[in-house]
Amino acid sequence: MGEHSGKGWRHCVVVGAGLLGASLAGAGKARGLFVRTTGVGRSAANLATARARGFLDDTTSDLARACADADLVVLATPVRTALEQLAEVAANTPASCVITDVGSVKGPIVAEARRLGLAGRFLGAHPLAGKAESGAGAADVDLFRGATVVLTPCHVTSARLRERIRMLWERLDARVLEMSAAEHDEALATSSHLPQMVAYILAAAADGAPARERIVALAASGFRDTTRLAASDPDMWTDIAQLNRAALLSAIDDFAALWAKLRKAVDEEDEAALRELIAAARRLRKAVAP
Amino acid sequence: MGEHSGKGWRHCVVVGAGLLGASLAGAGKARGLFVRTTGVGRSAANLATARARGFLDDTTSDLARACADADLVVLATPVRTALEQLAEVAANTPASCVITDVGSVKGPIVAEARRLGLAGRFLGAHPLAGKAESGAGAADVDLFRGATVVLTPCHVTSARLRERIRMLWERLDARVLEMSAAEHDEALATSSHLPQMVAYILAAAADGAPARERIVALAASGFRDTTRLAASDPDMWTDIAQLNRAALLSAIDDFAALWAKLRKAVDEEDEAALRELIAAARRLRKAVAP
Repeated sequence: MGEHSGKGWRHCVVVGAGLLGASLAGAGKARGLFVRTTGVGRSAANLATARARGFLDDTTSDLARACADADLVVLATPVRTALEQLAEVAANTPASCVITDVGSVKGPIVAEARRLGLAGRFLGAHPLAGKAESGAGAADVDLFRGATVVLTPCHVTSARLRERIRMLWERLDARVLEMSAAEHDEALATSSHLPQMVAYILAAAADGAPARERIVALAASGFRDTTRLAASDPDMWTDIAQLNRAALLSAIDDFAALWAKLRKAVDEEDEAALRELIAAARRLRKAVAP
Repeated sequence: MGEHSGKGWRHCVVVGAGLLGASLAGAGKARGLFVRTTGVGRSAANLATARARGFLDDTTSDLARACADADLVVLATPVRTALEQLAEVAANTPASCVITDVGSVKGPIVAEARRLGLAGRFLGAHPLAGKAESGAGAADVDLFRGATVVLTPCHVTSARLRERIRMLWERLDARVLEMSAAEHDEALATSSHLPQMVAYILAAAADGAPARERIVALAASGFRDTTRLAASDPDMWTDIAQLNRAALLSAIDDFAALWAKLRKAVDEEDEAALRELIAAARRLRKAVAP
């Protein structure tokens, strides 16, 4: 047992062989970080694809068994599933095995890890990487190159565990940031979950409009860009909305307050108020896409 | 005077030599639709660029004088400016001269044309074409290829005028739709003006958030796509918000009603209600980007 050559991992078990899981397995193998990879999942197609591409050495649907011989377990299933699987992983891995995840909401899984007494060997991670396609077929050993990965240690997380997980992501050419799970979830509520909700509601508004057909005929690149996220997976987003409920509600309320301000400015033809909102938007946009 | 060879125009005067005006002049010349083009504008740089690129034969800042010998005048200035210039164009063009525009709000200019007694020779147009860059330097003789162009005749517009303007755009390889100015403005409020406001308010919400710095650090492609429009020109959008005020307010209210529904669904963890909103969004998104 134990780590491989001080920096790598002897046996990495990836739970969920979708885009992120398969990419991580393949990227780690390609860079010599993992001696062996095992994929656990319910989708036989994803597992077979990831194996055929050389990203996984073994595949199974038996989570407990795969865990028995793991040095590193990466939960790469949807957020709610990962949360439910953590106890089983904890119960079936050796005490030296490190556990991490790639979920986009961190509070609940970090809390669950503490509840399970895993604070010493669980460290949550969230790679901000993705693409339009999903599944192992779209997996890419360079998916994390240049991506930001957030690690969410708590006060009992050891410096050594932080260092090992940081090293893992840096070897995949990602940029690593650390913050608390609460800080992560608060920021993500606005940077990711709010745009998702905005895209859904904008598209839903057009869907319900009496002029729907004309709106569709006249939708140009601006509408398409702003609603691109509306094509996203409903299962994933209903889970995220529930798991990050408090922070998302706060972001929804902030948006609503500004929306009401906008309505008032348009209604009263208050050009100064409208320009103030636009100036704030342009300032932020410049910071995000200089 | 009069038209050239039954299909083209002897002298086309383009007012405003920005992206749309310079592209239209160049596209028409490239296809032999215009024997001569004159650009009128306040920006000496745009005029010089469009002339150097061969899109304009002459340039001037004297609108009245340019109009005196025009067969076709195209108002390609910002919507409010075009509205203000229409009377001067009307007063200085021969009675046989056709007048059109390219503005993204149609109600006010169509009403102004009727007030000026121009119903027989004015026909509003809105090409749904653009690019990130602006100005004559970004002009492109193929800008309208495949683009949708909306013509907004009223009940006194002659079939011949509709046919001539339709032909003009079709010769530039655009797809022409006809509807009333009110129908256009109602649909655009949702298909174009609402996404613009959504992008502004989403970016403004992030700008005002206590976690602003972390939000900027964690903003990924979803946030960037959804706020892309927030970089848009404030002058143009304060004008549009005022000129299409009633339809925009209605679209803002429709969005607010669905936003409140979303808030309730998230707050009450009402998964069915959330899924219903998402399903509407995905249905519309599929219609817009199949």
